[in-house]
Amino acid sequence: MTLAQLGADVIRIDPPGGRLDWRRWPVTDDGTSLFWCGLNKAKRSVVIDLASAQGRELATALICAPGPEAGMLLTNFPPRGFLAYESLRAWRPDLIQLTIQGDRHGGSAVDYTVNPRVGLPLLTGPVDADDVVNHVLPAWDLVTGHMAAVGLLAAERHRRLTGEGQHVRLALEDMALAVMGHLGFIAEAQLGRQRERVGNDLYGAFGRDFPTADGERVMVVGLTPRQWRGLCDATGLGAEMAQLSQELGLDLDAEGDRFRARERIAALIAPRLRERTLAQVAAAFDAHGMCWGRYQTVAQLVQSDPSCSTATPMFSTVDQPGIGPCLKPGLPLDFSAIERAPARPAPRLGQHTEEVLADVLGLGGAEIGRLFDQRVIGRDAGA
Amino acid sequence: MTLAQLGADVIRIDPPGGRLDWRRWPVTDDGTSLFWCGLNKAKRSVVIDLASAQGRELATALICAPGPEAGMLLTNFPPRGFLAYESLRAWRPDLIQLTIQGDRHGGSAVDYTVNPRVGLPLLTGPVDADDVVNHVLPAWDLVTGHMAAVGLLAAERHRRLTGEGQHVRLALEDMALAVMGHLGFIAEAQLGRQRERVGNDLYGAFGRDFPTADGERVMVVGLTPRQWRGLCDATGLGAEMAQLSQELGLDLDAEGDRFRARERIAALIAPRLRERTLAQVAAAFDAHGMCWGRYQTVAQLVQSDPSCSTATPMFSTVDQPGIGPCLKPGLPLDFSAIERAPARPAPRLGQHTEEVLADVLGLGGAEIGRLFDQRVIGRDAGA
Repeated sequence: MTLAQLGADVIRIDPPGGRLDWRRWPVTDDGTSLFWCGLNKAKRSVVIDLASAQGRELATALICAPGPEAGMLLTNFPPRGFLAYESLRAWRPDLIQLTIQGDRHGGSAVDYTVNPRVGLPLLTGPVDADDVVNHVLPAWDLVTGHMAAVGLLAAERHRRLTGEGQHVRLALEDMALAVMGHLGFIAEAQLGRQRERVGNDLYGAFGRDFPTADGERVMVVGLTPRQWRGLCDATGLGAEMAQLSQELGLDLDAEGDRFRARERIAALIAPRLRERTLAQVAAAFDAHGMCWGRYQTVAQLVQSDPSCSTATPMFSTVDQPGIGPCLKPGLPLDFSAIERAPARPAPRLGQHTEEVLADVLGLGGAEIGRLFDQRVIGRDAGA
Repeated sequence: MTLAQLGADVIRIDPPGGRLDWRRWPVTDDGTSLFWCGLNKAKRSVVIDLASAQGRELATALICAPGPEAGMLLTNFPPRGFLAYESLRAWRPDLIQLTIQGDRHGGSAVDYTVNPRVGLPLLTGPVDADDVVNHVLPAWDLVTGHMAAVGLLAAERHRRLTGEGQHVRLALEDMALAVMGHLGFIAEAQLGRQRERVGNDLYGAFGRDFPTADGERVMVVGLTPRQWRGLCDATGLGAEMAQLSQELGLDLDAEGDRFRARERIAALIAPRLRERTLAQVAAAFDAHGMCWGRYQTVAQLVQSDPSCSTATPMFSTVDQPGIGPCLKPGLPLDFSAIERAPARPAPRLGQHTEEVLADVLGLGGAEIGRLFDQRVIGRDAGA
């Protein structure tokens, strides 16, 4: 979808009736999937029965269509049968195929099963928790999806420079393991250090959540020297922090020492925030250019945060078939030389079958009609 | 770093003494940052004093060096002063500059403050929790970093096709809001539905964590029809599930109905797993090709999981200056036409100052010596 939002013509091929995400939760009362509508924005949808030989031929023709802008396949289907790279390549020698798989052997793995293996659920949640806490955001899926876009762009660049296509593989499990290495978790464990749960604290410097007088909650961060000075100034605790430094023999201007002294620092800050309302805290924090955030529900975000509205150029109101007007994000990248396109709706299943077969493969109306009659291809499910 | 691991010559410019991440936790006993070593793999490091006019000139010359492979700047510094796009562009009209910022107005925001705003900490943790739970993985940073790589590759493609450079902006906050839209959270809230905490359950189908007889814990997923059948077969609960379908008037072959019946499904599965050891559960699950994962600590992952070892082609043992031999991940993308390069170490701060000024700017030894003497540039901090 990222590439579609960048302007690529992304054609999604589904079987009649759709795949599982066509009905995936969250759904509306009549079963329209908000998940599908969110993750397929700006794509074109074609329905082809891949169980039939004719259907596989049509799909192959679409995948291997000529032209420098075409000939790229992204799939999470195993590269075998008609989707084997060597088979497809017979139709387009410079094809680029990117296969996303669970583990690198082709075994099954999803975000929910990869995350427990890398150890994070045992580090998430309150300090005194003795249970595992799964993340709600499918972070590994998200990083893998963006890395797939990097892989396609890199392979396209290679093809443009050398003429050579290729098969690229990306395993969800490898992506998660790579990130655990990048962030230092693996090196830490190799050195025999066991990371402990730190609750909602920022690891390695100072940051923690605090309640306010009116029952709200804020996340306060003192990571950089400027943020730390801002925090001391906004809470009026500069002298107390200097005294604490002396008492503990630590240098609170150093990130690591702030982390070591976090309980004592928090004990000084908490009473100052507990006696002020969110509005008062916000005014003081903003006056000192601090880095902080309020905790809010998704409903509050959508109903009252201007960042999540058409006041932000990334968002537009889009008429989504099956749902109606929706607030939808476009691409978060803002290019100075390319005009920002408003978000586009997700297609209905099979909405573009006729159009794509005519445009891309040059099929005529009679031929397309015959394929419909033989149920090799499918129409717009909503029609 | 992703682009460096893809083969780009990525030169990182730091001031003398380094920026904050040079000492960021996790650190070794002598203060070497495992965070720095993880996130700067394969880059070259140059130390330049940007507070001096001569230093800014040198940096400008590096940023605007000629050639189709050069002329790209990625920074989280505000685009003003000598880093204003219009100023830099005077030296290279087709410069590509990508600025990562906190919010889109240039205000301060980090992963820790964006996450509370989008609502996820109120959805994370046990069903009966009444507190917020922050994520441990800096997921928004990770997605933003990968999207930045997408932005640079897309801008480079545009430049290669049109000759035109540009300034690209990417705000961490926008990235998080876009993802909340992509996943359907925003649409759900717009429709007046408030997502509830579901603990460790998979949302929208069946998936949950269960303890085993030997005190281990597994995450079990029945998302696809094949996974669901595997789960029924591996636990020998096919008949019980059919009966449960009838009793509840639900179709457990449909994802959403499995989610609705999740407590009853879990109540059937739990006793079966509680009487088997992890090894027995693993054997049964693997025999049925199920999608599952065990919960383990990072230490267990590193010490005993073959996926996190040099048995996986992505990993190699790298001699990291300041630390010694470390297990390091290369790129998770596996290209068929480009040989997989082993992971490379992160540089010491300033390790490549001389080499880069000679290579890229063609400065001679005497000139480089003079710049060192005037403290405009810095040497390897480890030397």
